[in-house]
Amino acid sequence: MATKERRIFSALETDIDAIVLMNGTEPNLDNSFFYATGITSGLFEHAVAIITPRRVEVLASKLEELSAKVAGVRTSTYSTEKELAELIRSRLKGTRRVGVNFDGLTHANFRFIRKHSGGGRMIDVTKAIQNARMIKDQEEISRIKKACDIGSRVGDMIPKFVHSGVRETEAAAELNYRMMKLGAEAPSFETNASWGPATAEPHYVPGARRLKKGQLALFDYGAAYRKYVSDITRTFVCGAANTRQKRMYETVLSAQLAAIDAIRDGASGKKVDEAARSVIDRSEFKGRFIHSTGHGLGISVHDPGGLGPQRDTVMKEGMVMTVEPGVYVKGFGGVRIEDDVLVTKNGHRLLTNASKEFISI
Amino acid sequence: MATKERRIFSALETDIDAIVLMNGTEPNLDNSFFYATGITSGLFEHAVAIITPRRVEVLASKLEELSAKVAGVRTSTYSTEKELAELIRSRLKGTRRVGVNFDGLTHANFRFIRKHSGGGRMIDVTKAIQNARMIKDQEEISRIKKACDIGSRVGDMIPKFVHSGVRETEAAAELNYRMMKLGAEAPSFETNASWGPATAEPHYVPGARRLKKGQLALFDYGAAYRKYVSDITRTFVCGAANTRQKRMYETVLSAQLAAIDAIRDGASGKKVDEAARSVIDRSEFKGRFIHSTGHGLGISVHDPGGLGPQRDTVMKEGMVMTVEPGVYVKGFGGVRIEDDVLVTKNGHRLLTNASKEFISI
Repeated sequence: MATKERRIFSALETDIDAIVLMNGTEPNLDNSFFYATGITSGLFEHAVAIITPRRVEVLASKLEELSAKVAGVRTSTYSTEKELAELIRSRLKGTRRVGVNFDGLTHANFRFIRKHSGGGRMIDVTKAIQNARMIKDQEEISRIKKACDIGSRVGDMIPKFVHSGVRETEAAAELNYRMMKLGAEAPSFETNASWGPATAEPHYVPGARRLKKGQLALFDYGAAYRKYVSDITRTFVCGAANTRQKRMYETVLSAQLAAIDAIRDGASGKKVDEAARSVIDRSEFKGRFIHSTGHGLGISVHDPGGLGPQRDTVMKEGMVMTVEPGVYVKGFGGVRIEDDVLVTKNGHRLLTNASKEFISI
Repeated sequence: MATKERRIFSALETDIDAIVLMNGTEPNLDNSFFYATGITSGLFEHAVAIITPRRVEVLASKLEELSAKVAGVRTSTYSTEKELAELIRSRLKGTRRVGVNFDGLTHANFRFIRKHSGGGRMIDVTKAIQNARMIKDQEEISRIKKACDIGSRVGDMIPKFVHSGVRETEAAAELNYRMMKLGAEAPSFETNASWGPATAEPHYVPGARRLKKGQLALFDYGAAYRKYVSDITRTFVCGAANTRQKRMYETVLSAQLAAIDAIRDGASGKKVDEAARSVIDRSEFKGRFIHSTGHGLGISVHDPGGLGPQRDTVMKEGMVMTVEPGVYVKGFGGVRIEDDVLVTKNGHRLLTNASKEFISI
């Protein structure tokens, strides 16, 4: 298996002497820094990774020294911004072409690196980093799989701990707790538990709302395991479903299965999206699928690559994609079903396997 | 109380026609976007806020339409990047001086805004935004206080649920669960529960380690409440403390109390840091306090401003700071004690009030 630095350099379309990745202040961290260095513990604000095809070196605050050692990455530490600037200058001495990640770097840090790069030209290597990150190696897949297993197991527990009268925040707390008890380091993003009309809001944040009979209950959540993540959505109904809810659920499930079925090495993200969208657009819910079908998944919840009408991602062995069509009706509610799928040589492998029956809770 | 947009504009040192804040892909979001718009729910990736002294407008993906409406902020939606570019062009037409937040904006988005700004000059307004954000209004203080109350209550519960044999990840899960049951939207950052030698690593991420008799147990965690956060650290001992652990704890507590005591309107961050550092440097743990004494707290865990040897922050009424000296001995362990403190006209008010006794669990 090629090292991460080799994978990044072999994805470059232009000649680069060294790549510099830099974190800002939380939340403005570059997940590519963690991808390239293999660091799984610690915060690493204002840390820098200097990457060449042969080695990776981290420049980090003394605060992070132990975390970097645990990860086994070559590290130099600094105490002040001035010392960091000196380290960058010494490492980039004579470097003519400096690669930086425009998408993960703050503009302030871009200027900081440029100022101390000794006149080297700053070149965007976002694309190469994304291309490297899109194809997962065995270790990455095994971490994602573990995160998916935790998510699936908790998904199947939902009917045990959510019932009418439970608040959205309480349900989210239970989900997070159970994921961590199963070995997750953290939820991979802020868990969304939404009831009734709130299910029509794809990026809802849970509130004090209590679940009522007849309402849809949607859970969008994931686990982080050694920095890699899962992302899963399941929709339930409290009590008996009405016929419109049933039709919504069946439409979304058919769309989701069609999209999963379309995933194989060589398929375009556009085509996979179209497989899901066409099912919904042939139904009474035409136009109610207001987002794309999926996104890449890895060290970030929104990893490079995706499935959507305007996506040019072509599926390749080793990619991991979410498949998550949904239907949203304002004031009434929404249904979304989401799984994580690994692209294989001959098709795909489902990484999440919680039940997709329309379960009454 | 002045609106957020007025507070930002009155902190400007130069003439600006409009300020443009823009989020990237998670985690590369600008918390100043949420500060200025008042949005407390939703993800808002690739959303833009156009701010003038008289109004705030959000340009957001259709996906976020409902969240923006709930927040009551004027919003225009887009479906494609091209539509977003057109919206930016129309809003910035004739604008000569465009303010942007170099510290919270990705370099890619800086280029995107510049490209569609119609030739307006791009000017860094990071400082003005930071100055506005540093002074909290009543609503902000009340949210931080609520987040602090949740953190304190859970801190006092720790002896009930952590005992020898418990794994770090299990304890972190319990902490998170209890914060959310008390009304937190989420932990404000990845909860750190560390045992024994791991307590010497300030930014440790919990692992499978089980707590043993005689070990130090350190908890660094916080709650998020309506986007505003708390940040608290407490250190315990499992079973009976040895004399070195007791001396460490007493030294850190004395240092922390000295720093809190030094906080008042007009005091410099350097002086507050020195109050803590001099206590430690007079002890056998000289040189073992390897980070700064504290940082600003608000909508970000690491909000602008801080207490450190190189900090020029001057305390002003309405600022909220963490006060968190610590002592770290490799292989042996560390002690850190952290509270959140509001600067008042005549001194300060402690926002976190969990017990600071050296409790045996």
